[in-house]
Amino acid sequence: MASVLFTEISELVTNRGVAKKGGVGVNEEDLGILRDGALLWDSRKGILWLGHDGDVPRGLARGARRVSLAGKTLSPALADCHTHLVFAGDRDDEFRRRLGGQTYQQIAAAGGGIASSVRATRKASESELYKLARARIDRCLSLGVGLLEIKSGYGLDWPNERKLLRVIARLKREYRSKVVIQATFLGAHAFPPEAKNGRDKIAYANSILRKMLPQIKKEKLADACDVFCDDGYFTRAQARRILRRAATLGLEIKLHADELADFGGAALAAELGASSADHLLMASDAGLQRMARRGVVATLLPATAFYLGLPYAPVAEMRRAGLCMALATDFNPGSSPTLHLPFAMSIACLQMGMTPAEVFAAATYGSARAMGLHSTHGSLRVGGKPKIAVFDCPGYVALISRMAHPSLCEKVF
Amino acid sequence: MASVLFTEISELVTNRGVAKKGGVGVNEEDLGILRDGALLWDSRKGILWLGHDGDVPRGLARGARRVSLAGKTLSPALADCHTHLVFAGDRDDEFRRRLGGQTYQQIAAAGGGIASSVRATRKASESELYKLARARIDRCLSLGVGLLEIKSGYGLDWPNERKLLRVIARLKREYRSKVVIQATFLGAHAFPPEAKNGRDKIAYANSILRKMLPQIKKEKLADACDVFCDDGYFTRAQARRILRRAATLGLEIKLHADELADFGGAALAAELGASSADHLLMASDAGLQRMARRGVVATLLPATAFYLGLPYAPVAEMRRAGLCMALATDFNPGSSPTLHLPFAMSIACLQMGMTPAEVFAAATYGSARAMGLHSTHGSLRVGGKPKIAVFDCPGYVALISRMAHPSLCEKVF
Repeated sequence: MASVLFTEISELVTNRGVAKKGGVGVNEEDLGILRDGALLWDSRKGILWLGHDGDVPRGLARGARRVSLAGKTLSPALADCHTHLVFAGDRDDEFRRRLGGQTYQQIAAAGGGIASSVRATRKASESELYKLARARIDRCLSLGVGLLEIKSGYGLDWPNERKLLRVIARLKREYRSKVVIQATFLGAHAFPPEAKNGRDKIAYANSILRKMLPQIKKEKLADACDVFCDDGYFTRAQARRILRRAATLGLEIKLHADELADFGGAALAAELGASSADHLLMASDAGLQRMARRGVVATLLPATAFYLGLPYAPVAEMRRAGLCMALATDFNPGSSPTLHLPFAMSIACLQMGMTPAEVFAAATYGSARAMGLHSTHGSLRVGGKPKIAVFDCPGYVALISRMAHPSLCEKVF
Repeated sequence: MASVLFTEISELVTNRGVAKKGGVGVNEEDLGILRDGALLWDSRKGILWLGHDGDVPRGLARGARRVSLAGKTLSPALADCHTHLVFAGDRDDEFRRRLGGQTYQQIAAAGGGIASSVRATRKASESELYKLARARIDRCLSLGVGLLEIKSGYGLDWPNERKLLRVIARLKREYRSKVVIQATFLGAHAFPPEAKNGRDKIAYANSILRKMLPQIKKEKLADACDVFCDDGYFTRAQARRILRRAATLGLEIKLHADELADFGGAALAAELGASSADHLLMASDAGLQRMARRGVVATLLPATAFYLGLPYAPVAEMRRAGLCMALATDFNPGSSPTLHLPFAMSIACLQMGMTPAEVFAAATYGSARAMGLHSTHGSLRVGGKPKIAVFDCPGYVALISRMAHPSLCEKVF
C-alpha cells in the first residue's frame, strides 16, 4: 500500500496512555482516542504521522493515497496471546457429556480431555494439521486479530511436538504479511497417555528438559515456552526447571497457572519473571501481588470459564494488585472451542465487571505485552510499525457491546 | 443449481421426529440424524430423495451434479424468528452507562432506550436504512440463517413505521433467493417520545388500530403483527385489541411477553392463539401451561438476558408444560446488539441447561414454527422445499459447542 493517508477516522484509538502506564490501572482517557482522526502510513516506515483530521501536514502527506474511514474505527490490531490452534479432531462428544453433568476432570480421567486430542493429533500428518490450522487462522484474521500466539502441546512426544512446531513455523512464514505469529512450545501441556506411573512422568519431564528444549533451540522452532502447572499436571518444581532452561535458551516464558486450584502458579511466574501467567481463576492475592511487582502480565481467558461453568478470574483483586491484564480466547477443542476474541471481550465486560476501556486495552496492548511484543505492537505512535486494524463501526465500544457479532473487521495491515 | 446430489454428508440432520412432535419434548433421536447421508435436491422441486449414502436410487440421481460433503453437516437452515434489524444509530453510550450500574429502565426513563433509536431512525432516509440493513443481513446469512423475521418499531408514527416496513419489503424482494424474510409490524413497540400523558398514549394505540393496521393491509406491508406487552409498555387490553384486529386482517400474531414483569402476556398469547410469545423471563407456570394447550411457541432470546444481566427464561418449566421452544437473537441496538444466532444457541446450552438437541431443534424447526412457516421449513422430507444450510463441521453439535465461532456456514440454499 506504499503511502496512505487515512482521513475522517471516526475513532482513532492510539492506546497512548495505556502504553505509558504499561497497561496498569487503565481508564478510558488512557486509550488516547482522537475523534475525526487521520493517520499517515508508509508500508516501509510505518506511522509517519497521526492526529486530528484538520492538522495533517501537507508536505508529509504529498503523494499519499487518501482513504476515508468515516464511520469507522482504526486501532492497534487485536492480539490473541493464548491459543492451542493446531490440533486434529473435535471433542463435541465431551460437550454432550459435560451438559450431562460430568466435570472436565472426570472426562479427562476417562480418557477424554487433552488425551483425546493427543490421539487424534498424533494420527494426523503435518500437511493435514497445516490445512486445518489455515482455515482456523483465516477465520481468526477476519475478526481483526493481528498478533496470534499458537502453542504446541497435543503431541506429547518429540516426533509429534516437533511436527506441531513445524506446522506453526510454516504458518508463521506463510502468514507473515498478515499476522505476527508467536510459536510457543507446550510439551508440558499434560503427561502423555503412555505415561502410566510417577516414574514415566518424571522421565517425560526430563525428556522435555534434556532432549526437546535443546533440539527446539537448534532448529529454531519456538519463540516461547509454556508449562501447564496445576493440580494433576506439572508440579511447580518441574515447571521451574523447564522454564528456567527455556529462558537460558532465549525463549519467552509463560505459565498456565492456578486454573483448577491455587497451586502457587502466580508466585512461580513472578519468581521466574515470566512474560505472563494465564487463567489464574484460583490465584491467591499474594501471588497476584508478586506478579505485579515483577511486571508479569495476567492473561484472562473468560471464554474458558464461560464454557466450563467455572468462576471467572478475580479481576477486582488484579486491579487492586496493579497488574497489566491481557485477554485471549484460549482457543482449543476441549475447553474453549472459539476463535472469537471480541466474544471473550464481551464476556469480560458483561460477566466479569471490567470496563470497556480495560477490556480493549487488555485485548490489544495487554496481549501484545504478554507476548513480549509491546515495544512494537499494541499502541500507535509516530515511528512505530505496529499491526493496525480497521473496524466497520464508529467506535471501539461496538467491538465489545456487539457480543459475538459476525466480524466488524474490515482490514488488518 | 438444477439437480444436485449431495453425498458423503457426515451428518444429515432431518428433524423428522422434531416435526412429528411439533417441537415438543425433543430429544436427540428426534433430530433424525443420518450419518454418511445423501440428499438429492432439485432447484424447482426441492428434495427428491434423502437417505444413506449407499442407498441412492440410481435412476433418480441420473444427470445430477455430485457434490461431496464429507466432514460437513447438512440440515434445515437456521431461523432467526425475532429481530429488530432495521434501525439507525447505535447505543454504545448506554452500554457504558449500564456497566456503570444503571438499569435498562433507568436509561429508558432518561431518554435512552428505544426512544434514542427512534430519534436516530426517524432522521434516517429509507435508502440509508436500507443500506444499513443490507450489511447486517449479509452478516447474518454468513452464519447459516435461511429464515429471518424483521420487525418495524423504531418509527412510532405512521410515516416512519411505513418507511421501515417499506425497507423490509424491499429487503424481502431483493434477498428472495437467499433468505425468507418475514415482515412484522411492531408499531406497538413503545409509546412515541411525543406521547407525554395517558391520553396521548391512548391516542397512539388507537392510531395503530384505526389507521396503521388497515393501511398496512392495503399496501401489503406486513406478514405479522407484534406488540410489546409489558409493565410500562402496552397493556393487555391494548395488546388484545391490536392483535385481534391484526388477526382479522390475516396477519400472524405474536407478543413480546413477560420480559420485565409477570404481566399476563403468556396467558394473553394463549387466549389469542398467537404464533409465538417471546422473552417470557418472568412468565408464570399457569401462563406457560395455557400457551402449551393452545400450541403457542415459546421464543427464547438468551442473548438479551446475557446482555442485560437478567435471569434466563424458565426452560425447565417450559419443558414440563410441554411447549415448543424457538430460539432467536432479538438483534437490536439496545438490548441484544448481536446477529450471531449460534452464539445464542451456545448460551442456551451452557447457561440455561438446554440440551444440544433441544437447542438445535429450537433454532431450526421451533423458530420456523414461531414464524408460521413450519409446514415448509425447519425439517427435511421428500417433496419438501425448505431452506437448507451446509456447515463446515462434522456434526450439528459443533454449531453450539464452538461458542460464537466465526461462521461455520458454507452455503444456504
